[in-house]
Amino acid sequence: MQRYLITFSYDGTNYAGYQLQPGLRTVQKELEDALTYINQHKKTTITSSGRTDAKVHALGQKAHFDLSVTITDAKLKRALNSNTSDEIHVSHVEKVDSNFHARFMVKSKEYKYLLNMGEYNPLERNYVYQYNHELDVKAMQKAIKYLKGTHDFRAFVSENKTKDNCIRCITCARIKRNKLDSSKLEFTFIGSGFMKYQVRNMVGYLIKIGEKKESPSKIKDVLESKNRLLAGKTAPAVGLYLMDVTYE
Amino acid sequence: MQRYLITFSYDGTNYAGYQLQPGLRTVQKELEDALTYINQHKKTTITSSGRTDAKVHALGQKAHFDLSVTITDAKLKRALNSNTSDEIHVSHVEKVDSNFHARFMVKSKEYKYLLNMGEYNPLERNYVYQYNHELDVKAMQKAIKYLKGTHDFRAFVSENKTKDNCIRCITCARIKRNKLDSSKLEFTFIGSGFMKYQVRNMVGYLIKIGEKKESPSKIKDVLESKNRLLAGKTAPAVGLYLMDVTYE
Repeated sequence: MQRYLITFSYDGTNYAGYQLQPGLRTVQKELEDALTYINQHKKTTITSSGRTDAKVHALGQKAHFDLSVTITDAKLKRALNSNTSDEIHVSHVEKVDSNFHARFMVKSKEYKYLLNMGEYNPLERNYVYQYNHELDVKAMQKAIKYLKGTHDFRAFVSENKTKDNCIRCITCARIKRNKLDSSKLEFTFIGSGFMKYQVRNMVGYLIKIGEKKESPSKIKDVLESKNRLLAGKTAPAVGLYLMDVTYE
Repeated sequence: MQRYLITFSYDGTNYAGYQLQPGLRTVQKELEDALTYINQHKKTTITSSGRTDAKVHALGQKAHFDLSVTITDAKLKRALNSNTSDEIHVSHVEKVDSNFHARFMVKSKEYKYLLNMGEYNPLERNYVYQYNHELDVKAMQKAIKYLKGTHDFRAFVSENKTKDNCIRCITCARIKRNKLDSSKLEFTFIGSGFMKYQVRNMVGYLIKIGEKKESPSKIKDVLESKNRLLAGKTAPAVGLYLMDVTYE
């Protein structure tokens, strides 16, 4: 048996998310079917760094699995890409130790969120949140700084996760205008880990601040309240990208 | 009756092209259905600056039509956008003289062609030609200059168009690396007009030069030969964008 770590990207538009769901088209299902075929029809499972929701994209997702067949990294990459749809692409394959774990050993994850304040663009409708109105970017940039550091992010997680341990550390949280088109915003979040809906809920609240409905420092109060009901709307899935995962 | 000129964008991925084709989903059909509805169910036709092929995108396409109902420009824009799919977007509406003609009065058109020399990216599969190999960009940049000026472009048009007048003037023809990602190429062509498959055939031949299968100056020989058979492969539709149309 050999354990492998793969890096892969996918267009989440036409998937019901990353994780297996009976009867639904998911990224995990497509990868496991391909791996089972490559592994001489021996049922093969895959463990990713974590799930992504329906319509969320990934550019640097990572996952591990074990194969009993002997195959070179280059051939395995080719076999995976020719046995999955053109909406998934494996960009890197490497052999890892048998105790490597793609979820438990995550050191950091990077997410990006893309938002268009300019005119609606039909070509980006599945890839950039078409907000299509001006926002107070400076106020949002002031507010996002409060999210940095180690906090209990209970106020920003999915309702059904508020009983879990919600303490996480965010090392980078910033908003930049796109260098080629200043009406596009790129939110970047790097941290030890993110919970279900956490990034989209943080972006949702930052938008509220950009709309001048709340002052920048109000995000600190919401964070400290640990009350999900105060954080408001979840930003749409289409603008979210899992960019990178690093390990110890 | 009032004549209007509209500027609009569309994602060509799921259309059988711009132009009406019985039983097929086209951009023109969707716009004419919306206009007929807005024009109190009086059959309304639209005349664009020209057609685009299946899977080709537009960011600055233009077209004219006549309405007998009285409606403000802002309301017309809203009505068009709410009665077409999210794959089409009208960004500008203006009243024009009744003798304005969106096709016959074109002064120049701008096309872009996007190509990715880097790793396959599933998120761009419908928007950037996934060539996924290195090309000799300098050789292509040398070659593209030969296309500038007034020439008979017979060698680069669709086979069934070679009997037409193929003399056109190209005022700008250049290839640049994307500023944020140097493995992406942007071809720009501005000219008095372009014929069916002309841009894709020119890009196809430039790729051949980038593959070092032909020397840069060979493109001049092909142009002068006026022989379609010498120009080789047509580049895929997915990378092509109609960017802008200007009028006298």
